[in-house]
Amino acid sequence: MEKTNGKLRVVIEGVKPEIDGGRFPVKRAIGEEVVVEADIFADSHDVLSALLLYRREGDKEWREVPMTSLVNDLWRGAFTVTELGQYRYTIKAWVDPFASWCQGLKKKVDAKQEVGLDLLTGAELVESAGKRAEKADAVALLGWADKLKTREVPEATRVGLVLSEPVAQLMAKYVDRSTATLYAKELAVLVDRPKARFSAWYEMFPRSYSAIPGQHGTFKDCETHLPYIADMGFDVLYFPPIHPIGKTCRKGKNNALEVGPDDPGSPWGIGSDGGGHKAVHPQLGTLADFRQLVARARELGLEVALDLALHCSCDHPYVKEHPEWFRRRPDGSIQYAENPPKKYQDTYPLNFEGENWRELWEELKSIVLFWIEQGVRIFRVDNPHTKPFRFWEWLIGEVRAQHPDVVFLSEAFTRPKIMHYLAKLGFNQSYTYFTWRNTKWELVQYFTELTQTQEREYFRPNLWPNTPDILHEYLQTGGRPAFMARLVLAATLGANYGIYGPAFELGVNIPREKGSEEYLNSEKYEIKYWNLESPGNLKNFIARVNRIRRENPALQHNWSLRFHNLGNDQLIAYSKSTASFDNIILVVVNLDPQWTQSGWVELPLSEFGLSAEVPYIAHDLLHDAQYEWRGPRNYVELGTTKVAHIIRLQPQTI
Amino acid sequence: MEKTNGKLRVVIEGVKPEIDGGRFPVKRAIGEEVVVEADIFADSHDVLSALLLYRREGDKEWREVPMTSLVNDLWRGAFTVTELGQYRYTIKAWVDPFASWCQGLKKKVDAKQEVGLDLLTGAELVESAGKRAEKADAVALLGWADKLKTREVPEATRVGLVLSEPVAQLMAKYVDRSTATLYAKELAVLVDRPKARFSAWYEMFPRSYSAIPGQHGTFKDCETHLPYIADMGFDVLYFPPIHPIGKTCRKGKNNALEVGPDDPGSPWGIGSDGGGHKAVHPQLGTLADFRQLVARARELGLEVALDLALHCSCDHPYVKEHPEWFRRRPDGSIQYAENPPKKYQDTYPLNFEGENWRELWEELKSIVLFWIEQGVRIFRVDNPHTKPFRFWEWLIGEVRAQHPDVVFLSEAFTRPKIMHYLAKLGFNQSYTYFTWRNTKWELVQYFTELTQTQEREYFRPNLWPNTPDILHEYLQTGGRPAFMARLVLAATLGANYGIYGPAFELGVNIPREKGSEEYLNSEKYEIKYWNLESPGNLKNFIARVNRIRRENPALQHNWSLRFHNLGNDQLIAYSKSTASFDNIILVVVNLDPQWTQSGWVELPLSEFGLSAEVPYIAHDLLHDAQYEWRGPRNYVELGTTKVAHIIRLQPQTI
Repeated sequence: MEKTNGKLRVVIEGVKPEIDGGRFPVKRAIGEEVVVEADIFADSHDVLSALLLYRREGDKEWREVPMTSLVNDLWRGAFTVTELGQYRYTIKAWVDPFASWCQGLKKKVDAKQEVGLDLLTGAELVESAGKRAEKADAVALLGWADKLKTREVPEATRVGLVLSEPVAQLMAKYVDRSTATLYAKELAVLVDRPKARFSAWYEMFPRSYSAIPGQHGTFKDCETHLPYIADMGFDVLYFPPIHPIGKTCRKGKNNALEVGPDDPGSPWGIGSDGGGHKAVHPQLGTLADFRQLVARARELGLEVALDLALHCSCDHPYVKEHPEWFRRRPDGSIQYAENPPKKYQDTYPLNFEGENWRELWEELKSIVLFWIEQGVRIFRVDNPHTKPFRFWEWLIGEVRAQHPDVVFLSEAFTRPKIMHYLAKLGFNQSYTYFTWRNTKWELVQYFTELTQTQEREYFRPNLWPNTPDILHEYLQTGGRPAFMARLVLAATLGANYGIYGPAFELGVNIPREKGSEEYLNSEKYEIKYWNLESPGNLKNFIARVNRIRRENPALQHNWSLRFHNLGNDQLIAYSKSTASFDNIILVVVNLDPQWTQSGWVELPLSEFGLSAEVPYIAHDLLHDAQYEWRGPRNYVELGTTKVAHIIRLQPQTI
Repeated sequence: MEKTNGKLRVVIEGVKPEIDGGRFPVKRAIGEEVVVEADIFADSHDVLSALLLYRREGDKEWREVPMTSLVNDLWRGAFTVTELGQYRYTIKAWVDPFASWCQGLKKKVDAKQEVGLDLLTGAELVESAGKRAEKADAVALLGWADKLKTREVPEATRVGLVLSEPVAQLMAKYVDRSTATLYAKELAVLVDRPKARFSAWYEMFPRSYSAIPGQHGTFKDCETHLPYIADMGFDVLYFPPIHPIGKTCRKGKNNALEVGPDDPGSPWGIGSDGGGHKAVHPQLGTLADFRQLVARARELGLEVALDLALHCSCDHPYVKEHPEWFRRRPDGSIQYAENPPKKYQDTYPLNFEGENWRELWEELKSIVLFWIEQGVRIFRVDNPHTKPFRFWEWLIGEVRAQHPDVVFLSEAFTRPKIMHYLAKLGFNQSYTYFTWRNTKWELVQYFTELTQTQEREYFRPNLWPNTPDILHEYLQTGGRPAFMARLVLAATLGANYGIYGPAFELGVNIPREKGSEEYLNSEKYEIKYWNLESPGNLKNFIARVNRIRRENPALQHNWSLRFHNLGNDQLIAYSKSTASFDNIILVVVNLDPQWTQSGWVELPLSEFGLSAEVPYIAHDLLHDAQYEWRGPRNYVELGTTKVAHIIRLQPQTI
């Protein structure tokens, strides 16, 4: 009994959001709200008060927001995060004896009962608050208490006084919180910059941008190419690894074991006698060139993201300098990567289970800090699911403690619980199964899960219709309409999305062989020379979609996503909207790359604040066409040239 | 980094059952299983092992049960609780390097790859296990390791050896668990005796059983009446409070403020100058009489349950002896119970917010212990939601620590979250909304929630079609068929159920006034004389239903409940079955007390282990009629005499 305070009557439970009992933070970007709900109740029928408490990590004082009682003991409060880093929140609630008493008094007065004695009880409550109060307030409270006790003052006057707003305010100010219940946990919010929530990525291999076909491109060549990407409206420029590439086990074209003298090797074959993860491939240029490229890109609104691929080629300096960071085979050789029966002789995984794991962790952290020094703030992390979870939690925590603006994108194409766990550990964005979700049923299921369940609190999707590793069959066979459809889906279903270009905007769609998702003559193993003006390219189409994203806040978040009936399995319709519904975007996409499809899209007009009786404007931003729609059902028809609508819905201005 | 062990690779999360992050125990009765599921995974693709650990509270050693991997990183294990009190469980899991290596070896062998070097790696693993092993095992392991290294032994022989069962067993025995992950929480199971799970309650006012009409009945009179109740098949006999009744503010018939000289008062008006919660009403007899009644009842298979109503009449000895346990009004009088504008002048609530709450708690505990001394092990707790939650958690914990066989039934007819919270705190059974759930839709919704969601882990429903306070309109207007339907529903939807008799079996159905749920001339305020043989009584019907419950284990649990389609909103059909499906009970009830109703009940035959092609037996245990049914859809018809089927489904014996 000693451990408990028998006078604490309020229970706070069912707090949302709360990830795994508070083990993990929720994520927000600057400017976003944290809406907190909880079940709050006490025994009996007294009136309760509840506060949402929040503070920036490190601040001493809690800031307070009153919570509101909704229905069935559910309460809600909200606060907005305004600074990078970490916030904490919790809840405090208590029984309010004065408010409870007022509630009873009102009912008795309504029932015309005698309340003389009750007013004396009220006077006692006011008096005891007066004793807790500061000077002027104390005088007021004690004065009121006296008046409440004075039988000469008419009962109705005293009732009016005690139920008055000034009394309520001072009584609330000096309410006795000594038996308040404080929720047992302080929950965390990880606050990112807005780009973690809203970004358009463009992945490119810098070595393919020489002006001279066949020649190894440089960072300087890339500088020339920047306006092309910026004009398309992207804001993150992601490079595969830019480090020296190993020679000993280098793979040839199309991942062949035989390698020619001119084969450049895969950028993921990191490390040679020229250096490892902190070096720049000499044919790309110097570290100074890289920094200059980063600066130029920034001028054009493009932020450079690097690949963090924590494994080594056979020639990586670590192999000689830190053999203890690798596993050895019984013959003394270093164990290469395997996924039996497949062998990856060109890749040496780091051994995180060795005795020197602490040194290894520190070194890997120093790689991230090195590139942060060079101006990089976004890292796309290669295969994080093949390194220990604890390492990522530590690494991201350490880096973000110094640089809370850093964004880590998890490239974990693996089982769902592992993808989610990495997100919980701190990754700010995550690759998704979108790449393989092509039918309407799949898309509805998957995006309902991503945007309407607790997952959304920590897992921020970044949608990629293609990557250098994945050319989906839908793109292989669907031609230009398939590329357009997938671009619109990625860019509007996800506030974060990206493409691997120029393979995407040029519609490259030939697989290495039938049944494979690998590109034929993949850029991973050879230097390309792209004809960016080839006919049918999607440059302008992409630019238009990206401009629509920037101009319409509804597309810059995911949580408002909802799907709409349309009665045709080849047409998908969904909307996103701002909280105030001043920006409502309806997207309709033809998933059939072969045939024209039509249907009647059904809209929840009243929820959108649109009238079912009066016509409203459907402005197709993608084709700049205006329609006058009326009522909840409207006809849509999409083909193989016009594959999608991105419609802004608006009431007609009168 | 100091706080973490970088080599722990396995994650254990999503453990079920786990109530509110482990804050509360789950409940089981002796003999029941605890099936534990968890998401268990690690980085990369290694083979994992997981153990479910459990122990009785106080035992030092964990008992271990291997967990099985199901699908998508979900694992499952189970244990059975065999002793009263509290159990603990948790999970341990680790990466198994040898099993992982074996998995790779098999794939390589299947792909006809060279594995000479791999066998040396295997030998190293076996050797290091040998160094950890005890004597004979060590010899075996080191011997195998040698053989695996011997090039003269054919590769196929060595592969066969290393993949053999004896090697696998010893390697599992000596697996290195030093980097195993132990789940961070030890979760609790509250183990009750079987009666907490399966019981049939009969509530009666002992004072109404004098042989002479109008005279105050005694415990001795009750003894004579016991066979009547036992013959109906009940096993818990619950008495409203048996204590002295206050005189000062006593209520008259029908809760009237005026009281006549012969009015006995409500049993809940506890306390007079003759004593309080530890005394027996003098007109009922002595404490010795009570103990004898308890013993006699036990001989007939009936366990006496007492009412624990923690409030006082104006005349309760506490009022004089412990005025500090009550609230005072400004005029010095004690504050009676109020729910404005309603006043309950005959009831003084205890003040749990006073400075002397510790003494109060101890005194209330001593009441429970006092009645335990007299042989009582079941308490029906009156209005627990008007006393602090912390008090109940403490009280039940203290009592059960000494007497783990005690059962507390929560009479909290209040808001859902409060009902659930009381159950979480330790109440072994709970009253439900069943009393007000009469339509098919309501019943399906509510019982799906009670039996198919996490609620079932801690909230054990006890279903009452009537109580002395509640005569539902359905019973008021439905006549005998309504009483039969509600009895069958209560007794088969709930493994625990009860009736307030003899009002129930005699079909008493007149309310105090239209729109009221109170009985006219309620037994709460007067002594009754019941004509138990009055025509139309349900004694034999109830006896039959209770016998069916005892003979059919399917009806002694709730979790197997499922509803079946029938295509008629007035007929409800559901089944319960044992885990092995050797006992399958189908219940069909006509909810319409006025008309005959029919429909085609649809059964999931294959899940029941019944063939859709061969006829099977439908044995109506309620009317002892056998039908030969065939296929999943069969015709049922129920009227106002035959209102329900309780059918045992069985394959035909050949």
